[in-house]
Amino acid sequence: MITVDNFVPILDLGGTFVFAISGAVAAVNRRLDIFGILVLSFVTGNLGGITRDLLIGAVPPAALTDGRYLLVSVLAGLITFFWYAGVDRLRSPVLLFDAVGLSFFAVAGAQKAIEFGLSPVMAALLGMLTGIGGGMTRDVLLAEIPHVLRSDLYAVAALAAASLVVIGHMLGVSYGVSALAGGVLCFGLRFMAIRHGWHLPIAHLSAQGRADAAPTDEKEPR
Amino acid sequence: MITVDNFVPILDLGGTFVFAISGAVAAVNRRLDIFGILVLSFVTGNLGGITRDLLIGAVPPAALTDGRYLLVSVLAGLITFFWYAGVDRLRSPVLLFDAVGLSFFAVAGAQKAIEFGLSPVMAALLGMLTGIGGGMTRDVLLAEIPHVLRSDLYAVAALAAASLVVIGHMLGVSYGVSALAGGVLCFGLRFMAIRHGWHLPIAHLSAQGRADAAPTDEKEPR
Amino acid sequence: MITVDNFVPILDLGGTFVFAISGAVAAVNRRLDIFGILVLSFVTGNLGGITRDLLIGAVPPAALTDGRYLLVSVLAGLITFFWYAGVDRLRSPVLLFDAVGLSFFAVAGAQKAIEFGLSPVMAALLGMLTGIGGGMTRDVLLAEIPHVLRSDLYAVAALAAASLVVIGHMLGVSYGVSALAGGVLCFGLRFMAIRHGWHLPIAHLSAQGRADAAPTDEKEPR
Repeated sequence: MITVDNFVPILDLGGTFVFAISGAVAAVNRRLDIFGILVLSFVTGNLGGITRDLLIGAVPPAALTDGRYLLVSVLAGLITFFWYAGVDRLRSPVLLFDAVGLSFFAVAGAQKAIEFGLSPVMAALLGMLTGIGGGMTRDVLLAEIPHVLRSDLYAVAALAAASLVVIGHMLGVSYGVSALAGGVLCFGLRFMAIRHGWHLPIAHLSAQGRADAAPTDEKEPR
Repeated sequence: MITVDNFVPILDLGGTFVFAISGAVAAVNRRLDIFGILVLSFVTGNLGGITRDLLIGAVPPAALTDGRYLLVSVLAGLITFFWYAGVDRLRSPVLLFDAVGLSFFAVAGAQKAIEFGLSPVMAALLGMLTGIGGGMTRDVLLAEIPHVLRSDLYAVAALAAASLVVIGHMLGVSYGVSALAGGVLCFGLRFMAIRHGWHLPIAHLSAQGRADAAPTDEKEPR
Repeated sequence: MITVDNFVPILDLGGTFVFAISGAVAAVNRRLDIFGILVLSFVTGNLGGITRDLLIGAVPPAALTDGRYLLVSVLAGLITFFWYAGVDRLRSPVLLFDAVGLSFFAVAGAQKAIEFGLSPVMAALLGMLTGIGGGMTRDVLLAEIPHVLRSDLYAVAALAAASLVVIGHMLGVSYGVSALAGGVLCFGLRFMAIRHGWHLPIAHLSAQGRADAAPTDEKEPR
């Protein structure tokens, strides 16, 4: 039976898998070799959780002591390597899987931070970090500005999910219920962002500021 | 009354605020959305201290347990977002504030490392890291070579301040005095670097080395 | 006499030195000033080990408590700064030294992870991380995709060496023997990769995938 005790690992492993796929696809596009692909798979799938664990003092991190995280990441990398054409054709499904992974990670990350006694606000932020940390590291390793910092309610959706879990915990709601609510909210926000282009405002630049900013913008084609 | 006990947090919070402003300005220039701006504010203001805390084993880091760091960072990000034109016009004052922040962080970082029992040399280096770590991470996230590695006595000024605090500690000078001396030294060095272009030497390249280096240089317009 | 107890530090310090040289050379090529060069030396020589120590909970990391790591790194940076022409002419010897450093680090990193009770698979991966972490950070700080992710059996050689140490430990072979075997294997793989261009396969892209990947490729001239 699925209980809270085995629910968190299942969320975590599912999130790891879809994130690892996204890391592997990025690595293939940048022409990394099979090993680079596996490293990117592992990093994208696990660095959010590893960073959270380092910050709350849960060392060695679960991703290093529980072999299933490695297994799932390597599997995702190999699938992408051997069936890249297939995975690539799934672009839009991958985005949806990624939204599911983000929901899983944000919810599970917030819960773990609560268990380690962090304050509500910080638990919500660590939930968000768990969700976005892997993708940020993937982009940094590929020498790009992290997409999560610029696109489509990504970090906000993670923060919303993590906040719901934290608020639920404070109100005494059972974890299963608040996790489900948070996950659905996160997925819904991402879905609307992908489908309908929902996004956050950017700052209004003066003419001078726009001139300053223009040349640096050219460095990122996307 | 301001005592040593509440002096360190005040230095730290002041430094966090001015660094967060610099992170927010960089984020606005790169056209990140409001959320990316807040993330950059927090990272620039706090990652130096968080890294120091991870390295000396002070987990969870103060920036995650003391909500004021988050508050100050978010405030700096919002101010920059809504009054970017105003903040941008302050470019030179911001550089001076940044020098103040660097002084605060280097001094407070060295002191905390001493309290955790690190050796004098390492305490000085961790003070420097506390000062430059946030700005380095900001630049890495924006896919740039960290400015602190290439400009104007920045890291050196932080190291000088941290070293003074450490030497003062070894000589039994009261923390208030050595912190003040270190802060003034750091600010003074940065001021001279900004005003009079003081900088450190770069290595003499052979003609061959220069030819090798040229193409990579072109990648960074600044 | 050289025993296991003093053998690990010797491996570690030797690896630190050659890696620090590689960091300093990269910094000189990017025209960093003397301080940036020393920072890159320290980071390249020590961040693999520091990351490993953070992950296994060995804080403060050895590189911060044992002053010899700093000394060796600074020495490498100064040698490169003052005799860049000489070091640069050694390009191929430096690659060989780097292979020696990689062997040292992978072997010593795996051994330390075993001592801290990590599982065999994770100890092997942490050995690899110890070997490649410094170089990865060097490249990230220089805003490049880490070379270790794309080139010439680099990470694989480190993983092979670390795996031999772990397997030796499980079979009860003395550390000296398995360390030697691992080191020779790692060096041999790197030597063949450098001399004969051995490399790992990259994924087969569909025509569509190749078109997608092309523009991003142009950003990295190497």
